[in-house]
Amino acid sequence: MSAVIPDNLKNLLERPLIVAFATSNPDGQPQVTPVWASLEGDQVWINSAVGRRKDRNIRANPKVTVLVIDPQNAFHWAEIRGEVVEFDESDAALAHINKLSGMYAGNDDYYSFNPEGKGKEQRVIYKIQPTRVNGM
Amino acid sequence: MSAVIPDNLKNLLERPLIVAFATSNPDGQPQVTPVWASLEGDQVWINSAVGRRKDRNIRANPKVTVLVIDPQNAFHWAEIRGEVVEFDESDAALAHINKLSGMYAGNDDYYSFNPEGKGKEQRVIYKIQPTRVNGM
Repeated sequence: MSAVIPDNLKNLLERPLIVAFATSNPDGQPQVTPVWASLEGDQVWINSAVGRRKDRNIRANPKVTVLVIDPQNAFHWAEIRGEVVEFDESDAALAHINKLSGMYAGNDDYYSFNPEGKGKEQRVIYKIQPTRVNGM
Repeated sequence: MSAVIPDNLKNLLERPLIVAFATSNPDGQPQVTPVWASLEGDQVWINSAVGRRKDRNIRANPKVTVLVIDPQNAFHWAEIRGEVVEFDESDAALAHINKLSGMYAGNDDYYSFNPEGKGKEQRVIYKIQPTRVNGM
């Protein structure tokens, strides 16, 4: 059961728009945070650090949802429901957060913004395979 | 267990910003949609129609979460986790959707945008009592 993101919604993920990323807390409360994201083929990749609330939520329940809204046009948005099919903790996770940092903050050295995290956290990519896409 | 939205985050809900509204589907997948919202005292009110997916989700699990991001400043955002403590299906629900329509679309006759819904749907206000607020 996998879904493809149509081209008219893909462009939202190709721009550096902050997305709303939803996971589920153990008590069933949605946790929704603003995050960076990248479109990689048909997948959406999000990057965090091992052990955070979000990370523990995803490992317990890999069903996650991303909402992105065009800030210039509220009628242009995409909801991507999907499943995290891979947790990548290799060196690629550091390369990915640096890529996101370049896209969103114009500086591809992520730890220049987060010096206290350098060497102290394990970055991880959540590779989200879409299962259903809504939007307009 | 209730939380107060601090003034520096309240202003996000006083502006006509589209919010990301998360509920939980029966299979544990977060459902996240862009919606209008109003701040009413310490509560956040959202308006929909009885019988929709969102409505059925909330009746099964009233734990919901709202994320609002300032489109001009991604570092200014609020996540309001809460519980729907009242479903208001009285005439107040129609007055509320018209109020939101005025705030967000500049026309307080909601059904001028949605003529096919007029008289065919039961509007409902979800009154969300915050239980935890994050943001900056």
